[in-house]
Amino acid sequence: MRIAIASDHAAIELKAQLRDWLIEGGHEVADLGPEIAESVDYPDFGYRLASVVADGTAERGIALCGSGIGISMSVNRNPAVRCALVSEPLSARLAREHNDANCLALGARLTGVDMAKACVDAFLETEFAAGRHQRRVDKLSNPEI
Amino acid sequence: MRIAIASDHAAIELKAQLRDWLIEGGHEVADLGPEIAESVDYPDFGYRLASVVADGTAERGIALCGSGIGISMSVNRNPAVRCALVSEPLSARLAREHNDANCLALGARLTGVDMAKACVDAFLETEFAAGRHQRRVDKLSNPEI
Repeated sequence: MRIAIASDHAAIELKAQLRDWLIEGGHEVADLGPEIAESVDYPDFGYRLASVVADGTAERGIALCGSGIGISMSVNRNPAVRCALVSEPLSARLAREHNDANCLALGARLTGVDMAKACVDAFLETEFAAGRHQRRVDKLSNPEI
Repeated sequence: MRIAIASDHAAIELKAQLRDWLIEGGHEVADLGPEIAESVDYPDFGYRLASVVADGTAERGIALCGSGIGISMSVNRNPAVRCALVSEPLSARLAREHNDANCLALGARLTGVDMAKACVDAFLETEFAAGRHQRRVDKLSNPEI
């Protein structure tokens, strides 16, 4: 699968660990940065990630920051992207089944690397259930704001 | 504090419990529905909640659905609102300190009522730390998408 991954400075180590593990797993991974642990603003990287998921360059996105909160907010500004912030695999599975999430957010200071990998596994392996969920997902692309 | 609360059908019981508890705590609470447990689409209620937080009618919003994922996505479509999906109080505190979150999302099927109350307490009691976080929060209101 074509996966893009982005973070802020707080999550640069988890980003490298997940990137390398995904490449070992046979995925094509685009690391959108940052490359070094210098302080950056998470919305810059969240918007960049949302953009490549929205235009189809990446099929899925993984968004990381210290808590996962800030970067998930920024990714969800893009109406074509559905980003789920999770800390355990059940939520990652539900995000795919019910919300057709195309982006997963994790908090590097709150969720350990093995738990993060279990979340990413559930995110990549679970299919969208469609049915009654389709209309709700369609509404997420058409915000009445 | 003026607090608005909204959910989908899966979270109607948690919504009532949190609403009554917040009123007992001296808050002014607007329950935006739904009123009965009939199947609804979470984006309808998420957009409604985001709107009253964005225009200042409510100072804070609480968004609930089965997992918290779908409704948090919909609330974050509004660039004036910063909605944090949490399952424990540390994330709720960080969402205020770092992200100036004005909306909290919880998953009624994943997070029990006492844990939900602890999250809401942290969300209502914690101040924004501003400083280096201010520029990032400002960027969340100006998505470059």
